[in-house]
Amino acid sequence: MSGRIAADVEMKDTGNMNASSSRFQGDNLPYVHKVGKPPKQDLLKEIKTALKETFLSDDPLKPFKDQPRKRKLVLGFQTLFPILEWGRDYSLAKFKGDLIAGCTIASLCIPQDIGYAKLTNLDPQYGLYSSFVPPLIYAFMGSSRDIAIGPVAVVSLLLGSMLQDEIDPITHKNEYERLAFTATFFAGITQATLGFFRLGFLIDFLSHAAIVGFMGGAAVTIALQQLKGLFGIKKFTKKTDIISVMSSVISAAHHGWNWQTLLIGVAFLTFLMVAKYIGKKNKKLFWLPAIAPLISVIVATFFVFITRADRNGVQIVRHIDEGINPSSVDRIFFNGTYLAKGFKIGVVAGLIALTEAVAIGRTFASLKDYQLDGNKEMVALGTMNIIGSMTSCYVATGSFSRSAVNYMAGCNTAVSNIVMSTIVMLTLLLITPLFKYTPNAILASIIISAVVGLIDFDAVVLLWKIDKFDFLACMGAFFGVVFNSVEIGLLIAVGISFAKILLQVTRPRTAVLGKIPRTSVYRNVEQYPGATRVPGVLIIRVDSAIYFSNSNYIKERILRWLADEEEQFKNQPKVEYLIVDMSPVTDIDTSGIHALEELHGSLQKREIQLILTNPGQTVLDKLHASHCAELIGEDKIFLSVADAVLTFAPKMEQA
Amino acid sequence: MSGRIAADVEMKDTGNMNASSSRFQGDNLPYVHKVGKPPKQDLLKEIKTALKETFLSDDPLKPFKDQPRKRKLVLGFQTLFPILEWGRDYSLAKFKGDLIAGCTIASLCIPQDIGYAKLTNLDPQYGLYSSFVPPLIYAFMGSSRDIAIGPVAVVSLLLGSMLQDEIDPITHKNEYERLAFTATFFAGITQATLGFFRLGFLIDFLSHAAIVGFMGGAAVTIALQQLKGLFGIKKFTKKTDIISVMSSVISAAHHGWNWQTLLIGVAFLTFLMVAKYIGKKNKKLFWLPAIAPLISVIVATFFVFITRADRNGVQIVRHIDEGINPSSVDRIFFNGTYLAKGFKIGVVAGLIALTEAVAIGRTFASLKDYQLDGNKEMVALGTMNIIGSMTSCYVATGSFSRSAVNYMAGCNTAVSNIVMSTIVMLTLLLITPLFKYTPNAILASIIISAVVGLIDFDAVVLLWKIDKFDFLACMGAFFGVVFNSVEIGLLIAVGISFAKILLQVTRPRTAVLGKIPRTSVYRNVEQYPGATRVPGVLIIRVDSAIYFSNSNYIKERILRWLADEEEQFKNQPKVEYLIVDMSPVTDIDTSGIHALEELHGSLQKREIQLILTNPGQTVLDKLHASHCAELIGEDKIFLSVADAVLTFAPKMEQA
Repeated sequence: MSGRIAADVEMKDTGNMNASSSRFQGDNLPYVHKVGKPPKQDLLKEIKTALKETFLSDDPLKPFKDQPRKRKLVLGFQTLFPILEWGRDYSLAKFKGDLIAGCTIASLCIPQDIGYAKLTNLDPQYGLYSSFVPPLIYAFMGSSRDIAIGPVAVVSLLLGSMLQDEIDPITHKNEYERLAFTATFFAGITQATLGFFRLGFLIDFLSHAAIVGFMGGAAVTIALQQLKGLFGIKKFTKKTDIISVMSSVISAAHHGWNWQTLLIGVAFLTFLMVAKYIGKKNKKLFWLPAIAPLISVIVATFFVFITRADRNGVQIVRHIDEGINPSSVDRIFFNGTYLAKGFKIGVVAGLIALTEAVAIGRTFASLKDYQLDGNKEMVALGTMNIIGSMTSCYVATGSFSRSAVNYMAGCNTAVSNIVMSTIVMLTLLLITPLFKYTPNAILASIIISAVVGLIDFDAVVLLWKIDKFDFLACMGAFFGVVFNSVEIGLLIAVGISFAKILLQVTRPRTAVLGKIPRTSVYRNVEQYPGATRVPGVLIIRVDSAIYFSNSNYIKERILRWLADEEEQFKNQPKVEYLIVDMSPVTDIDTSGIHALEELHGSLQKREIQLILTNPGQTVLDKLHASHCAELIGEDKIFLSVADAVLTFAPKMEQA
Repeated sequence: MSGRIAADVEMKDTGNMNASSSRFQGDNLPYVHKVGKPPKQDLLKEIKTALKETFLSDDPLKPFKDQPRKRKLVLGFQTLFPILEWGRDYSLAKFKGDLIAGCTIASLCIPQDIGYAKLTNLDPQYGLYSSFVPPLIYAFMGSSRDIAIGPVAVVSLLLGSMLQDEIDPITHKNEYERLAFTATFFAGITQATLGFFRLGFLIDFLSHAAIVGFMGGAAVTIALQQLKGLFGIKKFTKKTDIISVMSSVISAAHHGWNWQTLLIGVAFLTFLMVAKYIGKKNKKLFWLPAIAPLISVIVATFFVFITRADRNGVQIVRHIDEGINPSSVDRIFFNGTYLAKGFKIGVVAGLIALTEAVAIGRTFASLKDYQLDGNKEMVALGTMNIIGSMTSCYVATGSFSRSAVNYMAGCNTAVSNIVMSTIVMLTLLLITPLFKYTPNAILASIIISAVVGLIDFDAVVLLWKIDKFDFLACMGAFFGVVFNSVEIGLLIAVGISFAKILLQVTRPRTAVLGKIPRTSVYRNVEQYPGATRVPGVLIIRVDSAIYFSNSNYIKERILRWLADEEEQFKNQPKVEYLIVDMSPVTDIDTSGIHALEELHGSLQKREIQLILTNPGQTVLDKLHASHCAELIGEDKIFLSVADAVLTFAPKMEQA
């Protein structure tokens, strides 16, 4: 071993040993490893692989392979209802964790639900309904162990805002509610369909940055909406942009804000924020912010009941229907003009709800290190919303804040959702009359303290640090929501996401490579200033698949590199060889082949040889299929840049 | 020198020399070249570079740099009117070539123009108008030397089909013509705007494959439309799909086709096709197919005039307005409902016209090896259509067939377009009455023989051979046009192009690497079956930038490779190191960083070390900015896979 190292040290001193040091054969000719010429591609196999990677990338059928039919049936049921699988190992110890977590999120969700229903312009009981049926369904079909299901702020705002554009919620209450159920139904259909056809990857087209901005903007908008309840303002704008809302608030000052309402609101908001701060500082006290809302509701309700502050203009909830969810099957619009409108709203709300739920599911799955099948999740969420729409619920999904509480309270399985659902059911059956004197201001405070968590400053700072374009996308979505409307913000978010994808594919990077001293590794001369150019040889790496969207650009960019090189190094030997390192070129299409052929033609006229190095399997395949490899010359295709340089400019490589 | 080679041969025998053979220092520790840590990025510079590559990738301002103001002004004029530049070197010798080419394309374009005007449902003179003004403007502003400007078949069909959907061309002739000029105006505005704001790259989003299919489909549709003229059918469907047209033709058979018309049509179609065939076989006779149409028109017109076949039901042109283009400035709709419709139609027609012209310009520029500034071309084409719309022209662009004839006839500059334009002007002034007895059947034959060239069988075969997905895109666009309508075909073409881009970015390839024997090069084990895996180390190359659209997929795919590896090689040592080769990863965004961090977390739980090799400048930048590099450990980032393997598994590397 030590002898070997000594030999190595010696070689270091000679200074030019490298990747293909074994390339000299006994006959003193350079030994160059042959570029792998792949076997003829099989069309069927190729299509099968492509389809599999696109739709079944997580290999969901693997467990079914080579199983008897009966076992397949059992497995199928278990796939559809994961509870059948994890339920068998369920134990009392696990239930203890789930019970505590379930109670905690129930205490958090009850006041939130009542407030969120108001955001959707629905009566408070609909929020509670949506925290009863959907979590139950999810517990049977979902595979996330930590998600807490129910109405969430952003979806409530989005749904309320879009529904309101179609029907006035006060004058046409019945139609409004019917449209809400219709939208919920189609939200569920959308989610289930995407999951069933394994199109889950489509939601990946919403970039993280855009979502951060959209969520932050929605949070600000929601908080602004709460100023109505907090200040006890009666005449309030229907628009959601910051300018309309602030002028509403200011103009209401003339008539005098209701000081009792403001006092209650600000006092409890302070309490909630302090509780939140304590919970954040001391992780053991996580339950404090979780139960603070319920405590606030109880205290404030009692206070209003005692003082009859509602007689002094403090607005109260007044009435919540008693009893569990009535059926709403016959209230869904299955025909008429509202069908199309409900469909449109449902698709948008469904997708946003999905994005939120999948993001939460993935976050906690990665914290506890278990795998989540996105498509299966979508089927579960879709089914739960379809059934929800028939039982007077509106769109439910996973809630960021409640899921985090659920996780910290030590939930083990989806049973915590069942516990929460049961408590909500009991609330609906027994204690809704007690909410009569709950002041609206307290609900506003609860919502504000809940949505503040959606504004993720750290993420924005990180975006700025890492990727300026991501930061722009984030700000675009944020300001779109805050200064215009949720829909416009969403459109901007989607638009920016697509623009980024398109820019990525039209303007790929290219780099000039140089040789890193004492190795045979060739790297970007900008990144490695020590790398030396080989005189007479220009080495360019193309950093992307060559497709129709960029083939022309790449061809012209390479020619521009050549022109720059010739101008910059006028006194050096003329460029005789242009090596295109294809290592990062993962695929090429017919336009790409044409571009290569045109490049070859242009170079030939200037008496420069085109050399390709390290084309991948697919690329090599296509180069051969199109006879482009023959045109360029198969002896001009090398395994590595080092090999090519050694063959065509051996003196230069050793210089 | 020979001693050096001998040393090399010796080293070959030891069998394990490689990329970092110089990595052993005197102190017997592995010498590993440091990964270039790029200097802190400069935000302004970064944005400037990104903007420049996107919008000014061809560096159009380079000649202006460091010039006195007066010179800049001259250069500016030359940029806008390239004729000022090339005109100074213009000579009699060049004019000779241009004169011959101009006459040839004029003889080809006059009958085509009359026919194409019919496709647009306009009177024949409008076709001639559009071959007079636009080529003149282009000659002053355009930079292609070979393109022949005028009305073309596909754009005429598209425009006619879209205009007809809005206004009936027979009952509301005046409004129809006005809408046509309005659409032409906005087509020009669209083209000039794209060029001015340097958004020319947007047309790269139409894939070559989709264009081949669309053009082929349009050619078939146009040929089918000519059956009306060829069979002398009076009642003909307004739809363009093959089923409607064929049932029109067959049902007309009951009333009897007009045999005289059919005879003239078929006879001359045969003549034209034979001429075309001869011209193709013998390149010297290229002028034969070029003047065949004019000969056919003259002979057929004379024949009809002598025999008065029009009295036997042979439909003739009857009337073409004499005189050059009247002004149409006041006929453009600048307000009212037709403004929006004209705008919509204009944008679509303008983009298609642009695609065709740019494709032609590029083809011939690459044949004669000169550079073409796509954005400048767009400004020229746009200006020519704007002025055209004010002088009774409809959308003109570069014609494939006439440009090819222009090139073969030896044109040298855009002067050939001026020659052609002059001949068309003389035709309009002097000889339009002679076209009175030209039979419509002959125009139909000329159009059929012209559009046959748009069906590019070879390209389709090549698509099938090279890229099956491209082939599908091509067929989709083709059948969309043939069986439905031009608009649907176009939509399919655009849709498929985008789907391909999106698929490309969501499902990038990943590959397991192995060591190629006797080198330190690591390559895809599927492509190079001889490559050997390093036991205990799994090396995966990610073949794409890691963006929000694929970050989750990449993370999950890597974990799946790991699971597969552990299952497949159960008896081998457990995987201890997972090397992710980032060579092809050209960029990463915040979602990508998150995915890497999650991957790192997952691997840590399984006691596997994550190692990154060869991250590019941008990626490295972002890894540092996000502190992800610290999380993974800076000593876990290597210049090459070989370095990483040697450091962590030296025995394995040498085994």
